[in-house]
Amino acid sequence: MPKKSADLTYKSYLALETLLQAQKPLSPAHDEMMFVVLHQTYELWFKLILFELDRVQKIFGAKTVGDADLRLVSASLSRVVNIMQLLVRQLDIMETMTPLDFLDFRHVFRSASGFQSMQFRELEVRLGLRADDRVGYDGKSFESFLSEEDREQLHRIMKRPALLDQVGGWLARTPFVEMGGFSFWKAYRKAVMDMIEGDREAIMKNRRMPASARETELNKLKGMQAQFDLLFDKGGGETLPWRFSKPALQAALFINLYRDQPALQVPFQVLSGLMDLDELLALWRYRHALMAQRMLGTKMGSGGSTGHDYLAATASKHRIFKDLFALSTFLIPRSRLPKLPREVVDRMGFRYWDKAEDAA
Amino acid sequence: MPKKSADLTYKSYLALETLLQAQKPLSPAHDEMMFVVLHQTYELWFKLILFELDRVQKIFGAKTVGDADLRLVSASLSRVVNIMQLLVRQLDIMETMTPLDFLDFRHVFRSASGFQSMQFRELEVRLGLRADDRVGYDGKSFESFLSEEDREQLHRIMKRPALLDQVGGWLARTPFVEMGGFSFWKAYRKAVMDMIEGDREAIMKNRRMPASARETELNKLKGMQAQFDLLFDKGGGETLPWRFSKPALQAALFINLYRDQPALQVPFQVLSGLMDLDELLALWRYRHALMAQRMLGTKMGSGGSTGHDYLAATASKHRIFKDLFALSTFLIPRSRLPKLPREVVDRMGFRYWDKAEDAA
Amino acid sequence: MPKKSADLTYKSYLALETLLQAQKPLSPAHDEMMFVVLHQTYELWFKLILFELDRVQKIFGAKTVGDADLRLVSASLSRVVNIMQLLVRQLDIMETMTPLDFLDFRHVFRSASGFQSMQFRELEVRLGLRADDRVGYDGKSFESFLSEEDREQLHRIMKRPALLDQVGGWLARTPFVEMGGFSFWKAYRKAVMDMIEGDREAIMKNRRMPASARETELNKLKGMQAQFDLLFDKGGGETLPWRFSKPALQAALFINLYRDQPALQVPFQVLSGLMDLDELLALWRYRHALMAQRMLGTKMGSGGSTGHDYLAATASKHRIFKDLFALSTFLIPRSRLPKLPREVVDRMGFRYWDKAEDAA
Amino acid sequence: MPKKSADLTYKSYLALETLLQAQKPLSPAHDEMMFVVLHQTYELWFKLILFELDRVQKIFGAKTVGDADLRLVSASLSRVVNIMQLLVRQLDIMETMTPLDFLDFRHVFRSASGFQSMQFRELEVRLGLRADDRVGYDGKSFESFLSEEDREQLHRIMKRPALLDQVGGWLARTPFVEMGGFSFWKAYRKAVMDMIEGDREAIMKNRRMPASARETELNKLKGMQAQFDLLFDKGGGETLPWRFSKPALQAALFINLYRDQPALQVPFQVLSGLMDLDELLALWRYRHALMAQRMLGTKMGSGGSTGHDYLAATASKHRIFKDLFALSTFLIPRSRLPKLPREVVDRMGFRYWDKAEDAA
Repeated sequence: MPKKSADLTYKSYLALETLLQAQKPLSPAHDEMMFVVLHQTYELWFKLILFELDRVQKIFGAKTVGDADLRLVSASLSRVVNIMQLLVRQLDIMETMTPLDFLDFRHVFRSASGFQSMQFRELEVRLGLRADDRVGYDGKSFESFLSEEDREQLHRIMKRPALLDQVGGWLARTPFVEMGGFSFWKAYRKAVMDMIEGDREAIMKNRRMPASARETELNKLKGMQAQFDLLFDKGGGETLPWRFSKPALQAALFINLYRDQPALQVPFQVLSGLMDLDELLALWRYRHALMAQRMLGTKMGSGGSTGHDYLAATASKHRIFKDLFALSTFLIPRSRLPKLPREVVDRMGFRYWDKAEDAA
Repeated sequence: MPKKSADLTYKSYLALETLLQAQKPLSPAHDEMMFVVLHQTYELWFKLILFELDRVQKIFGAKTVGDADLRLVSASLSRVVNIMQLLVRQLDIMETMTPLDFLDFRHVFRSASGFQSMQFRELEVRLGLRADDRVGYDGKSFESFLSEEDREQLHRIMKRPALLDQVGGWLARTPFVEMGGFSFWKAYRKAVMDMIEGDREAIMKNRRMPASARETELNKLKGMQAQFDLLFDKGGGETLPWRFSKPALQAALFINLYRDQPALQVPFQVLSGLMDLDELLALWRYRHALMAQRMLGTKMGSGGSTGHDYLAATASKHRIFKDLFALSTFLIPRSRLPKLPREVVDRMGFRYWDKAEDAA
Repeated sequence: MPKKSADLTYKSYLALETLLQAQKPLSPAHDEMMFVVLHQTYELWFKLILFELDRVQKIFGAKTVGDADLRLVSASLSRVVNIMQLLVRQLDIMETMTPLDFLDFRHVFRSASGFQSMQFRELEVRLGLRADDRVGYDGKSFESFLSEEDREQLHRIMKRPALLDQVGGWLARTPFVEMGGFSFWKAYRKAVMDMIEGDREAIMKNRRMPASARETELNKLKGMQAQFDLLFDKGGGETLPWRFSKPALQAALFINLYRDQPALQVPFQVLSGLMDLDELLALWRYRHALMAQRMLGTKMGSGGSTGHDYLAATASKHRIFKDLFALSTFLIPRSRLPKLPREVVDRMGFRYWDKAEDAA
Repeated sequence: MPKKSADLTYKSYLALETLLQAQKPLSPAHDEMMFVVLHQTYELWFKLILFELDRVQKIFGAKTVGDADLRLVSASLSRVVNIMQLLVRQLDIMETMTPLDFLDFRHVFRSASGFQSMQFRELEVRLGLRADDRVGYDGKSFESFLSEEDREQLHRIMKRPALLDQVGGWLARTPFVEMGGFSFWKAYRKAVMDMIEGDREAIMKNRRMPASARETELNKLKGMQAQFDLLFDKGGGETLPWRFSKPALQAALFINLYRDQPALQVPFQVLSGLMDLDELLALWRYRHALMAQRMLGTKMGSGGSTGHDYLAATASKHRIFKDLFALSTFLIPRSRLPKLPREVVDRMGFRYWDKAEDAA
């Protein structure tokens, strides 16, 4: 970096002398340069994703989350989502290489493998992927592929609160769910029971419906009832594998159902951003799996991984914000929504309407 | 259509009066219009994909495939691949709808479902998806969701040769694989055995390698040998589930290994295009599965489908040109490639060099 | 449409029998089908864009815009932006056709041309493109290419308020810009003058700066001052070609500068959405221009248009929300922002903090 | 780099310790990190583009271009096109920053500017952008913004043959354009004259055509004739600003018209790839211009550039392979194409048909 900023040039600002000397292919194969550059850009973007995550986690780590800060969370998530879309798209460039061209240099890696990307491991851990949820790999933990030093670093990160936990804490503090005499959970539960009862009656009363159709409909209804029973802890001991606490779940559902209220609009954007991110990570893993299959066939991948199968398994199992997706199961139609008390609605509104309404 | 083309307008050419009247949402929910338009554009693109497939199948259905025709095949595949990329991207628009908004109108579908898209079913069948390879659905065949008429139409299509079979036939006729005294398969087999033997010797001779590493390496080699044994029918009765015939597979491998030869360049593009298409269909199914999970949670999907799980299963199982992906397993490094006899190389070249060389 | 919804099928819901019969190429050229389908999908998406615009304009057409409604505006704009991105991308499919292939059927159009797309014309007019701002075309108004009936329809649309005017009206009603004793415009003007004066002093005091550099810096500052003079109507009669009224402009600037305030977060998203849309329309026109150049060279386009040049001119001149882009010129650094009075800040906050703060 | 490749790790292979330390924002503004990372990824991709260009230029720099080499050219161009599409898309990430956020750190650049990207300047020069064709910038040559050292380096590059010149040389050597007694240019010229004459007669004979329409049609025809006159050097001294030599142009036209011939298929892909690249560079410049307008308004950009206007001007003027686009003007319908003599067709075919035909 130049000492006087007057000396600053594009080249020095971006440290191009260092950056553009850092590509060292190990073979004479033409396509290795693409392979190096592509992975380096991935790592640069990972750095930025982690940097945005720093801000998000710092905000959620505070005791209260201010409104201006929540906008920053939403902005950071939008940026991360945008980057992840680029990273999915970027695999197209990898596929300009053919399997035969890859064969020209993949022997140089030996035991080195994308498995060892510490930034990606850090991202997974900080979002909230638990060691126990990870897909096994040739029967071994992925940690066995890391150096002692990297393993320790990862363990330190694991000890810090993950985003999932922080978001859970923030959700659980949502004030409107229990306010004055209003209990959202009671009102919602009643609405659900009324809905199911109403549906059952409608089916029974419909005389034109053939017996077989009626049975189908009633079975569907029973299935739905069973799911709600689990939600309401009436499942006879069976429980749903939620990661969020009950209060956090209830708040997330509340935000989904009443997201039009001013105070819930940005929180809803935040929840949507987390789902977008979760989806894009899965999509990236899946495209990665397809690419591995194309490049390596069914042979062992670089670093010994079984490539396609492993990656495809992570796509479906390494999901973090699954709870938010599962909530869609428990949405109820707007016409069935419990009407919120005036007081609660007021508290979710802006102050500036006060005088406007007085004037009217 | 106007009788005199002088009367032609943009509106009449595109039949806009019909087209733009064909959106009939059944509910007052705002987002239903998006849902209708999005699905209608899918169906329009499916029509175009089938139209391109018509040309491709007509060409491959002929006794011989001329060089100019093969370029048309490649052009049609490129277009289809481009469309499929758009269709994957197009799901972004669906996700501008929230699950709660979807709930406002998804009751109108009752038993109607995307399952019934006959154009998509036709596409699958014509590419070569076999009824037996299909994922079951609530324990039922997908055909049970079709009308009698649609089912019959599909059965008629099933009786016609699928693209996979046609491509197999075309590959099997590749002349260069057996030409004069040259047998690609014999030469390739020898090269493979030499490669494995060479690798084994290198491991055994490497005195600096620790015993445990040596064992790992020898085990890897054994695994590789086992795979090649299967390819060469020495697997002790176990066979690989190829869909292509042996001669077709051998030609496909030949094209992959010698794709630089002028006469193999466009054939190689055709095989790549088929793999691109297969990958994009899988990717589309997978994104579709993610979207279903987000919209419907774990509840039953529209038309009774279990949404996410079913779609995710089709992504991995409804693959058609798997053989082409598996071939990557059997590629060998360029340095190990059998050298082609001069005669074979000559036959894969252009005539125009003849005099050029004479002159030189 | 089926009478009983129990009869509803995928096919009937989407009117596929009509939709998939509406492609009538006029030539035997293979690529004409792509051309037809691509334009039909454009028109379907235009229909959806206009449908979303209906909602947006209805909301802005009301006397006051409620907070829940403003979220709907933001959601509709996001969807339209997403669609426009798809439409830009979709041109890739057109470019799978070569100019020679286009030549095979472009004679069938005669005087028919994309110029006659009434939905696109309607979109331009409803957003706020004025007849006087339009690029001339072969010296003729684009209206001369429309039928009498279409022309009249467009004139009816022109008489209704455009989105630009509605947004201007909504902005002008923003309460916080003048509230109690606070005048944003006065405070902002003072901040600007202080900033320029401060910069001038810093330059003059910097003794290490060479005379030539000082002159450059002072000239830059003079240029900046001149621009602000125009903004503050001190330009000696010269005026900026704003389309928004002064109060609307001031409010837009206020929203940009204080967008972290809760009550301004969604308004800021709305303004950003309008800029995204404006940018994407320009980008679409520009890509269209490039494509025309590639397909038609420098010859006259279909329907007699001079293709590339005309389209490229519209890309730069048919901009609608230019005022919002120009505002970036007048942003000042956060450190220079006038501090808002407590009362104004309070009014832009949520009511729910009231008791929280009491409790603290 | 590790000495023994057994020590190779993901981290050492990609030089991550260096790479991930090279981001040094100069301000505390949050968004500056994104700005740095985004520009660094651009530069990494530029490095890869130049690397692919090395291969392409080395091949075209040889006396003859072999068929296998031409496939490599086509592969490199495809990759570069794919990268350029990514780079256009990547601007989306820049637009996750707002103008106000940019204002927080853009003062740190002072005279540093993207203008100084030597890799991009090198790319422009090596493709064939001439100094004289460049848009002026505040009345100054862009070179005045470079350091002495960079300017000299660029001048050295300017002295080497540009890709445009190399492609021109390769095209000019196309053997089929003049072969045996056949002269493509004579045959084509005759076909054009016949076409125009035929069109004129058709217009004159059409009795139902009103006089005004006839005049319009005849004027169009006159315009077309005038263009062809220029092509055939009958323009009375006026000439078209071609950069390719006449033989190169004729060969490019020949390849476009007869691209179905086996020997022309890959050459046609190469010409298409060059046009794709030219288009994408223009599109990238144009999106860049839009972004500059949004970030900076109409004020001076970083480094003193007038941002939007300059960039928009380069989008339309810094085109390199314009000749290839202009050729579309001179395509004639397939039905009018001169039939090639048997000998020429034969020479463009593969040898392998020889015996196949003998057998038939």
